[in-house]
Amino acid sequence: MPDLAFFQELSAAARAVTLGAAVPVAENKAGEGAFDPVTHLDRAAEQALRAAIERRFPSDGIEGEEFGLTRADAKRRWSLDPIDGTRALICGLPSWTTLVALLDGSKALAGMIDAPVLDELALGLEGRSLLISSAGIRPLQVSSCSVLGEARLATTDPFLFDEQQAIAFDRVRRAAPVTRYGLDALAYARLAAGSLDLVIESGLKPHDYNALVPVVRGAGGVIGNWQGGADLSGGDVIAAATPALFEEALKLLRN
Amino acid sequence: MPDLAFFQELSAAARAVTLGAAVPVAENKAGEGAFDPVTHLDRAAEQALRAAIERRFPSDGIEGEEFGLTRADAKRRWSLDPIDGTRALICGLPSWTTLVALLDGSKALAGMIDAPVLDELALGLEGRSLLISSAGIRPLQVSSCSVLGEARLATTDPFLFDEQQAIAFDRVRRAAPVTRYGLDALAYARLAAGSLDLVIESGLKPHDYNALVPVVRGAGGVIGNWQGGADLSGGDVIAAATPALFEEALKLLRN
Repeated sequence: MPDLAFFQELSAAARAVTLGAAVPVAENKAGEGAFDPVTHLDRAAEQALRAAIERRFPSDGIEGEEFGLTRADAKRRWSLDPIDGTRALICGLPSWTTLVALLDGSKALAGMIDAPVLDELALGLEGRSLLISSAGIRPLQVSSCSVLGEARLATTDPFLFDEQQAIAFDRVRRAAPVTRYGLDALAYARLAAGSLDLVIESGLKPHDYNALVPVVRGAGGVIGNWQGGADLSGGDVIAAATPALFEEALKLLRN
Repeated sequence: MPDLAFFQELSAAARAVTLGAAVPVAENKAGEGAFDPVTHLDRAAEQALRAAIERRFPSDGIEGEEFGLTRADAKRRWSLDPIDGTRALICGLPSWTTLVALLDGSKALAGMIDAPVLDELALGLEGRSLLISSAGIRPLQVSSCSVLGEARLATTDPFLFDEQQAIAFDRVRRAAPVTRYGLDALAYARLAAGSLDLVIESGLKPHDYNALVPVVRGAGGVIGNWQGGADLSGGDVIAAATPALFEEALKLLRN
């Protein structure tokens, strides 16, 4: 089983590519009329992560956002999003992260949310979560917020929801005193650190959500789907500091 | 006239208070049903800035967000927003800034947007803009983006607009490939640095906008109101990398 030191090695390998580079120009992965940005840094970072994993764990499968699936029949599989928050990256903003998860079947054994510009590596491993930075290593612990009327809420883009979801999200937003946008996976690292209390999103892909689960749960938080279940494959995700807050948000979403 | 070194001194005085502090708990400045957060760090940072200014320029006026106006009859006046982006601060996010402007009547002679967590001091002084960090000093220069279809857009909160403004802003948002939220004054520093191209906001107060003007103009950008004029006192602000982009956004806002 990979240990903390190996995740630090993965972080260093990706940062060697991404950190300190000039703000990259985006190419559009989507067709005409849509925009799904990718940059040369997304691809180079995924190659660096793949090389580091293959050196140490050559029989593991690897599934990355940019280069697809390698060794599909392997029982253990790595899930990679080399740059989550490419929109932030191309705007010169510090909130983009590198996501790595280790899966056994569909179960996430470990997950890392690494924010290179902020020098913050959040790691969920063996049931607990840690924040690793140049200042040292400390445990991550969610807040005790259990009431939506006191919750700090985040979602990545209020215009990414479909019409019904937008109406549902709006009920939650109006009940929370503060809402933050545009954070992608960093929102879940902040939830784990106790400075956000609730994250609600839709449309997440496996490489977006796999790494979040061990980080949030290892810090004592709750993560599930908009129906209250644990299966995230539909891409709609709620993460909350406490079960009471999770349930209150769920009720408003379903109304 | 204060020089670069004095602004660095102001930055250091405020950072001594704000940087490295635990994520503060917000008090609500607004009445029931609204939320306008303030923290002990907002007040302590403004006091540190006031003390530094009064030591060096004892006859200047000072107007701060938290402690009001001192020496109202002074010709030269400092405008202070000790923490712009208190919502980001209370969520443990790195985008909050300290804003200082020096005014002669209503004209801004100099402005600083200081992002302590990011170690980025953007300074507009004597007609040019600089970025000062531990890595050194470099000039700030806006991008050459002149077409909305290629522009990186930012606004602080899409739900802060009134109904007519929201409809107008939505026209611009749909025409731009990328929109970022929640950045407050940092968006203008990124515009000056060339990694955002367009910022559109409403409801700004003088302590919010005074410091932005010298930073944006000194980097070659355009800043004005939603009618195309230079008077920002109505609080509606457009800042753009180029005059062509400014005009295109203006046309869509007015339709």
